[in-house]
Amino acid sequence: MKIGIYGYGNLGRGVELAIRQNPDMELAGVFTRRDPATVKTLTGAPVYAAETAVDFETEIDVMIICGGSASDLPVMTPMLARNFNVIDSFDTHARIPEHFTNVDRAAFQTGHTALISAGWDPGLFSLARLLMNAVLPDGKDYTFWGRGVSQGHSDAIRRIPGVKDARQYTVPVEDALNRVRSGENPELTTRQKHTRECYVVAEDGADKALIEKQIKEMPNYFADYDTTVTFITEDEMKRDHMELPHGGQVIRCGNTGKDNGHRHVMEFSLKLDSNPEFTASVLVACARAIGRMHARNIFGCKTLFDIAPADLAAMEPEEMRKKLL
Amino acid sequence: MKIGIYGYGNLGRGVELAIRQNPDMELAGVFTRRDPATVKTLTGAPVYAAETAVDFETEIDVMIICGGSASDLPVMTPMLARNFNVIDSFDTHARIPEHFTNVDRAAFQTGHTALISAGWDPGLFSLARLLMNAVLPDGKDYTFWGRGVSQGHSDAIRRIPGVKDARQYTVPVEDALNRVRSGENPELTTRQKHTRECYVVAEDGADKALIEKQIKEMPNYFADYDTTVTFITEDEMKRDHMELPHGGQVIRCGNTGKDNGHRHVMEFSLKLDSNPEFTASVLVACARAIGRMHARNIFGCKTLFDIAPADLAAMEPEEMRKKLL
Repeated sequence: MKIGIYGYGNLGRGVELAIRQNPDMELAGVFTRRDPATVKTLTGAPVYAAETAVDFETEIDVMIICGGSASDLPVMTPMLARNFNVIDSFDTHARIPEHFTNVDRAAFQTGHTALISAGWDPGLFSLARLLMNAVLPDGKDYTFWGRGVSQGHSDAIRRIPGVKDARQYTVPVEDALNRVRSGENPELTTRQKHTRECYVVAEDGADKALIEKQIKEMPNYFADYDTTVTFITEDEMKRDHMELPHGGQVIRCGNTGKDNGHRHVMEFSLKLDSNPEFTASVLVACARAIGRMHARNIFGCKTLFDIAPADLAAMEPEEMRKKLL
Repeated sequence: MKIGIYGYGNLGRGVELAIRQNPDMELAGVFTRRDPATVKTLTGAPVYAAETAVDFETEIDVMIICGGSASDLPVMTPMLARNFNVIDSFDTHARIPEHFTNVDRAAFQTGHTALISAGWDPGLFSLARLLMNAVLPDGKDYTFWGRGVSQGHSDAIRRIPGVKDARQYTVPVEDALNRVRSGENPELTTRQKHTRECYVVAEDGADKALIEKQIKEMPNYFADYDTTVTFITEDEMKRDHMELPHGGQVIRCGNTGKDNGHRHVMEFSLKLDSNPEFTASVLVACARAIGRMHARNIFGCKTLFDIAPADLAAMEPEEMRKKLL
């Protein structure tokens, strides 16, 4: 299966490396909006200008689109779905229905197959929520994220005047996690579920107290959380905060039985050294499924909910039943 | 969707109760090999003789077969697949390929849809293994079971002369579990992964030392494990050991990155108050999917690997994307 990568940031590089781990996959090329001559790939894969992608229509089975959800993907995915089978990791939860409709129309009209919102959340976590809801209809589920770097929150801090660099970690509250795991089904506020740890490099002479206040009072991002701000040096940032770890848990507790007296706790958890590399690994498995579904003339926009799990794996069905069932 | 239950033990009763939690499901009847007049259902569902099941061919959308894997299901599932869409929880791992072939032939020839080996292991745990293998091809996975009652091991103890009753708990070794979770990818022997706790009621005057020796040296069941045997009274058995809790973990640790230097740990875990009721809940969700697949003219034998997750849940696709993705 021949894969194209559209957009070459952290996620694109992750996809490039993930393809190497899947012998049934081959990287046809990387497409960038930058000058291709200035982009060096990790594995020596060829780099082309984004606007020439359409010339590769017949040479690429699935195009993995590695752009941002805010402004890139809402435009890119429907556009590219006219010429390619496509996959993206669109993660603006509130806009998923609209994005789905746009991509579905483009893919369906041109006989392509698309998958949106792949990755781990949305993605594997969504799948876990669905499975858990299907199995335990009488229950309640919770999602915790972290400990991990939130790029959106880090960016929000960087926009504050006097901030040179920043890294924000989302941290689940251990006590809340334990209460959920115990099957207590607690009502938890935003503040009770996660804390936010900020590591900030300030410009020389910046007013640190003011920066800290501006972070802690920032609506949506920080105001509803217990937030800690730690000022560090540029060297400390480089030494301690250059990785992009993440993870989290989906937990559902539900009841069954004659008097609803039996309690069951289901949990799916991830502990990731590299958020972009793991997300990329999910995208590559999804690319396999989308290529296979397209070969069966299944067109339009899909999500992980629509994919038979067997289609994600390279293994033959007989071997799968023997080894994994 | 109209469901039939074939076999009315712990699992059959669990299915009966689970159907109540799913408003799109209706219980058409329970089929038993016992005298129907002697069987009282928990919810007042009608009971029929097993051999009359075929008379209900047009009234049942999916038959959930609640028999044992050793001798019931290898016969029942292919037989019933000639007249019904069927689901079973066949769990003799080594014989799954053979069972699959038999059921597939029967279902395919008569235009039915079948699902074998549903439940949690095989079942949800198999699905977790598949997803984890697809996403992290370079890795190693582990399955731990317990703390929970193993019916097979309890039965094995009961067959020893002088034993009146017995309950065996399979217990994962905490230290092994932690090593796996840490991403160490250890090589673990059978003994290092699980211990076995046996609670035994001895007949009056029985040689307890001999019983203990016979348990601990029993090949396949106990000889390869660190086994503890505790003799208890009949009252203690009734007071402390009448529930059937179970659970376990599937964990995969895999690497990604340029030098394979990033480690990711994926875990799916279950903590169940009632093994049969939870298994039944999985079977009912699977019944929904099999009914839907049959309506789309998809015939033959399937496993959870072949089911698009959306088919398991009652929710509409739009709502699912909005709420769970």
